[in-house]
Amino acid sequence: MKEQLNIGLLGMGVVGTGVCQLLAEQREAIAARTGVEIFITKALASPYDDKSAIAQKYGFELTSDIQEIYQDESIDVIVELIGKIDPAKDFILGALAHKKHVVTANKDLLATHGPELTAAAKKAGVALYYEASVGGGIPILRTLSTHYLPDTITSISGIVNGTTNYMLTKMLTDNLSYEEVLAEAQAKGFAESDPTNDVDGIDAAYKMVLLTKFAFGMTIEMKDVSIGGIRGLAIEDIIYAQQLGYEVKLIGTAQKTPKNHVAVSVGPVLVPKPHPLASIKYEFNGVYIESTGIDRSMLYGPGAGARPTATSVLADVTEIAKNKSAGITESFLTFEQPTQIAVPDELRQRYYIALTGPLAAQQQTLDWIDQESILEKKAFLTKPLSPSELTAALSIFEDGRISQIMKVMEE
Amino acid sequence: MKEQLNIGLLGMGVVGTGVCQLLAEQREAIAARTGVEIFITKALASPYDDKSAIAQKYGFELTSDIQEIYQDESIDVIVELIGKIDPAKDFILGALAHKKHVVTANKDLLATHGPELTAAAKKAGVALYYEASVGGGIPILRTLSTHYLPDTITSISGIVNGTTNYMLTKMLTDNLSYEEVLAEAQAKGFAESDPTNDVDGIDAAYKMVLLTKFAFGMTIEMKDVSIGGIRGLAIEDIIYAQQLGYEVKLIGTAQKTPKNHVAVSVGPVLVPKPHPLASIKYEFNGVYIESTGIDRSMLYGPGAGARPTATSVLADVTEIAKNKSAGITESFLTFEQPTQIAVPDELRQRYYIALTGPLAAQQQTLDWIDQESILEKKAFLTKPLSPSELTAALSIFEDGRISQIMKVMEE
Repeated sequence: MKEQLNIGLLGMGVVGTGVCQLLAEQREAIAARTGVEIFITKALASPYDDKSAIAQKYGFELTSDIQEIYQDESIDVIVELIGKIDPAKDFILGALAHKKHVVTANKDLLATHGPELTAAAKKAGVALYYEASVGGGIPILRTLSTHYLPDTITSISGIVNGTTNYMLTKMLTDNLSYEEVLAEAQAKGFAESDPTNDVDGIDAAYKMVLLTKFAFGMTIEMKDVSIGGIRGLAIEDIIYAQQLGYEVKLIGTAQKTPKNHVAVSVGPVLVPKPHPLASIKYEFNGVYIESTGIDRSMLYGPGAGARPTATSVLADVTEIAKNKSAGITESFLTFEQPTQIAVPDELRQRYYIALTGPLAAQQQTLDWIDQESILEKKAFLTKPLSPSELTAALSIFEDGRISQIMKVMEE
Repeated sequence: MKEQLNIGLLGMGVVGTGVCQLLAEQREAIAARTGVEIFITKALASPYDDKSAIAQKYGFELTSDIQEIYQDESIDVIVELIGKIDPAKDFILGALAHKKHVVTANKDLLATHGPELTAAAKKAGVALYYEASVGGGIPILRTLSTHYLPDTITSISGIVNGTTNYMLTKMLTDNLSYEEVLAEAQAKGFAESDPTNDVDGIDAAYKMVLLTKFAFGMTIEMKDVSIGGIRGLAIEDIIYAQQLGYEVKLIGTAQKTPKNHVAVSVGPVLVPKPHPLASIKYEFNGVYIESTGIDRSMLYGPGAGARPTATSVLADVTEIAKNKSAGITESFLTFEQPTQIAVPDELRQRYYIALTGPLAAQQQTLDWIDQESILEKKAFLTKPLSPSELTAALSIFEDGRISQIMKVMEE
């Protein structure tokens, strides 16, 4: 006889509906492989929002009272797909307190209250999984906590925001300005009406907080991330970068410094065209890992979208089903290291600088400019500099002449 | 008190030595995360091959008698890194019969005797893992059996042989002939003195047999794979492909046909430059997956090398350690589907054709030629054709005029 695993669903937006549909498609195959049949038996819905059609289609009950889900002893797992902090956080803490396993795609919440939620799950003896919170359909968190367990990661860099990667790809392929491409992305539903979280790098920073925990065992906060975005990026700079042999990408990076501290940043970066991250286009994401064992590796896939994200959610639920069947409880196996945040000057790197006017003749001879890279005196690359060295070097320019500064990734 | 897991090591070549070294580096970190300390306690060595230096360095005993390892009740896991079929197969079957878990990197063996070994492991109630057998350091098998469990894969394509990808990259970047680059690869130790397994696609075919099982649940044999290689490939064709917008790669593909049969092939393929597989260079590998849930995703990393491969071996051993600690036994969770091999004409695709002479004028009007692609009448792409249609179409050329035919991958 097959075992059964029952889900209480919170959130029936795009991803929630995707989970309903995928589970209907995959229930039989999952049961054949794991011996466990998974059902959504109850879902939370506001009394002001008619979800009876979807409830009927997929055969579950609706309730407007979260307590009804908590008190239902037949429910094993609560899947939270509401997003943001309130009321998602209270719902998840309530679920854990009632000894329900939790699966969520909530990156904001995990990045800002991860340790509290993890501790609550541990105390309750239940699982807390959130694979879908980073990289949509990409299996990054589970893979970091299994395959990379016997490896030492030295840096992890990713394109972890699909909206901005879509915008950057479109700017270049269609020769559009930032404003034009943002308007188009908003019209198509790829960008929200308030695009702040995406274009200013905040969404990517949430994900880097989580990746820093999984890669280095260090718990950092959003304030520890140096955050920049692509707001107002000029198409000229993307084209200059192309001419220098680079793609401009919004890159999140967490890396160990020589002092073994961690430096975490998000911002527009010049990625050399042969680098695996350079060829990632449109809404796709990629996470690139450097480690002492495997060396260089990357996971690539859709960073958003109903079905990819729902697949990650379902992979988490399936893991819980397998574990229930085996009689064990597991969460992601992360580890603890003392959190030591690098000071900016611990790392040197090359920078891309664009000017509004030409370089003066004598300035071209400055030894911190990579002479090979000077592009018609409008843009150039520096040699590796620390942030202080960069500031000192740039002090010879009047502020108004510097129109853009971006980091350059090494090949 | 920490638990302990003991390994009996078979094979102390490049990868075996890598496992010794990585385990020494990572023992403490693995123990901190899993609660289990892993040791190599005994290794099999020929009496004619002095391995006392490595045994002393890493603190294990040597024996020339496999029975001594089987009979040692303190040994939990046997790691087989000898390679090939004999005597590896007997050693593994012996280990399983003595209820030892087995970890191996042996693709030849798993591809040709996988079902027998899997059944023996199941019967003995022990684990059999072989992550390192496909894609070196890439976590492809474990990820397919976990994250992709609730997904339906429709095709899986990969660059799964590092030697040939290194050769193809070098031919293009250094403008070398096949013979020159093979000699160089052999001198550097990237290719064996008899390169047949690599250059004729046999090694890649072994890996596609395993990927077909993990992606589709179908058990196929080597004879079911349509195998081609890169032996004698002309640099001209690589350059023509470049001009048409493609990279030439040795690609293994397993895909479902519209009739739900599986078609598995290995051969040189024109990969469109924007495709994620196109930018994989030198010894790196990548496995590209199309599925109904996640859509398009890829795992990328080093396809060979002592440390990457040893990391995959150690990831398998670590999984066994975690499971021992949790009191359960697991192997890769694969599934069973009736094996239905496609007949060639179930699939249409585009082909690259190179000729030794020019096309006659009237031949240029043939409707199966993609007119856009004609390259100075030396090479062109066809429209999508079945193999029979291709044969019929090419019958107008004298055999001697066709110098190369390769499949073309769609973007």
